[in-house]
Amino acid sequence: MLLVLTTGGTIDKVYFDASSEYEIGEPTVPTVFREAGVTLEWRLEPLLRKDSLEMTDADRAEIRRACAEAAEERILITHGTDTMSLTAEALAGLPNKTIMLTGALAPARFRVTDAIFNLGLALGAVQSLPPGVYLAMNGTIFPAGKVRKNREAGRFEAV
Amino acid sequence: MLLVLTTGGTIDKVYFDASSEYEIGEPTVPTVFREAGVTLEWRLEPLLRKDSLEMTDADRAEIRRACAEAAEERILITHGTDTMSLTAEALAGLPNKTIMLTGALAPARFRVTDAIFNLGLALGAVQSLPPGVYLAMNGTIFPAGKVRKNREAGRFEAV
Amino acid sequence: MLLVLTTGGTIDKVYFDASSEYEIGEPTVPTVFREAGVTLEWRLEPLLRKDSLEMTDADRAEIRRACAEAAEERILITHGTDTMSLTAEALAGLPNKTIMLTGALAPARFRVTDAIFNLGLALGAVQSLPPGVYLAMNGTIFPAGKVRKNREAGRFEAV
Amino acid sequence: MLLVLTTGGTIDKVYFDASSEYEIGEPTVPTVFREAGVTLEWRLEPLLRKDSLEMTDADRAEIRRACAEAAEERILITHGTDTMSLTAEALAGLPNKTIMLTGALAPARFRVTDAIFNLGLALGAVQSLPPGVYLAMNGTIFPAGKVRKNREAGRFEAV
Repeated sequence: MLLVLTTGGTIDKVYFDASSEYEIGEPTVPTVFREAGVTLEWRLEPLLRKDSLEMTDADRAEIRRACAEAAEERILITHGTDTMSLTAEALAGLPNKTIMLTGALAPARFRVTDAIFNLGLALGAVQSLPPGVYLAMNGTIFPAGKVRKNREAGRFEAV
Repeated sequence: MLLVLTTGGTIDKVYFDASSEYEIGEPTVPTVFREAGVTLEWRLEPLLRKDSLEMTDADRAEIRRACAEAAEERILITHGTDTMSLTAEALAGLPNKTIMLTGALAPARFRVTDAIFNLGLALGAVQSLPPGVYLAMNGTIFPAGKVRKNREAGRFEAV
Repeated sequence: MLLVLTTGGTIDKVYFDASSEYEIGEPTVPTVFREAGVTLEWRLEPLLRKDSLEMTDADRAEIRRACAEAAEERILITHGTDTMSLTAEALAGLPNKTIMLTGALAPARFRVTDAIFNLGLALGAVQSLPPGVYLAMNGTIFPAGKVRKNREAGRFEAV
Repeated sequence: MLLVLTTGGTIDKVYFDASSEYEIGEPTVPTVFREAGVTLEWRLEPLLRKDSLEMTDADRAEIRRACAEAAEERILITHGTDTMSLTAEALAGLPNKTIMLTGALAPARFRVTDAIFNLGLALGAVQSLPPGVYLAMNGTIFPAGKVRKNREAGRFEAV
């Protein structure tokens, strides 16, 4: 079984006309999984709705705790891209857990987006890799601690 | 590096108004990879444009040959879903190759489709698994020989 | 109030994986109108599900009868594009009726399509024009009898 | 011939990951018209990129001047929805001009949006109506001065 933790980020952003604001809305993972015909057993635990630039150490501790306490050994985390690699590093050392972080540079609700593909990318990898922490972005699976987001270029790169 | 072989199937179907016909068109993988910001190095080899119900042993031999002769150790194959498991079984025993077959129940050109997600699913898994042949459908990675398509239910299941 | 008559055509085509066939499905107008926030009062009367190349005189007589018997003075008809102009000509001479035919070269269910735009085009025009019969295609409102589909070029032209 | 003036609004909003900001981007009308196969002759004049809550009298005077000076008699204006009716009222009394304002509650770049439909709605009506100023929203053509946006309900209503 798979646990999906949602923490916010661009992937779940939606436009609210009433406020003329662009905010993080309901997790889009359930809709994406349904439209993709995912039959794997999985559970959703919505934790946060934060832009990752606003994540705090307390937030990261909460995410770590949710991973540690989960019965599941496979965990997919959706997260804003700006500090995804920091959160990944904060999740090191949890035994028997394959943890995969992903997110998107464009919201899942957009017509042209990387969100759908990235969720598939993350799901394919999280069920295939041994325990550890990884990022799934730009079609690539990166081990945590060896990747950073190149903000100018708008992509993730190995370091 | 990754080799992508395209063989047809619903994933690449497109509607041609001039003929009032719904046929297999240009491979959609390049567009999907581009929109998803895939930075992994990869190469496209379009082999066939067939409905998988029309695949022959000669076709499967051609696919096997393309896998064997490729320099790449990671190979992603897009294929019609109806006989995907048969083709997977025909690719057994190629040393040092991680081969991932995927396809879709709805064309990539549809607004609601599993195609985009499945391509991500396959890409995440093909770079994560040891040599062997696998199918990526319905959010699940199946080893070849242990899966069949349940046509009534419209999904793949382990056997 | 507006009456919407659906008769088939590419606009409503959907892919059925179980049959590997591409067929005319449920009318897409209700979904399109809902997503567009249409608040105008309207009623749906699904008449046929035909490729317009297969329309007969009896079919056209049925469409004419539905228009004549409707209480509504504004009627929007979705129709296959191949013989849309023939059906339009068969609807001439119904007093106090503004009748607008439209359809699409790509299904409404496609990610890239003219279907959504054409339904808006037709709706904007049908509430704005005096009685008569018209076609709404390629961003243009054509009076019936003065338009034909250029099949090679895939567009409608005034004649 | 048709003149299209763009002034901003939600319809053209796009997400810029680099700034984590949701801003007004390039006008989407050209892409929408192209995908819809619009063959009508038309010209684009991008005037502003403003949220309509930030429109000033000077902005409205500029829009009016552009309408007055244009050779075209048919003018389609894309505009934010919040003060669309105010701008419409500021355009009254220009002889021989059929002016149609439209916009959207969701960006054209969204997968589910009213933008595409509304552009079709506006185009169908602007070529069908006599000189005057109108709004095209929620599937309805409203004469200027007789409509307001109900912000709580998120729709336009006749007054």
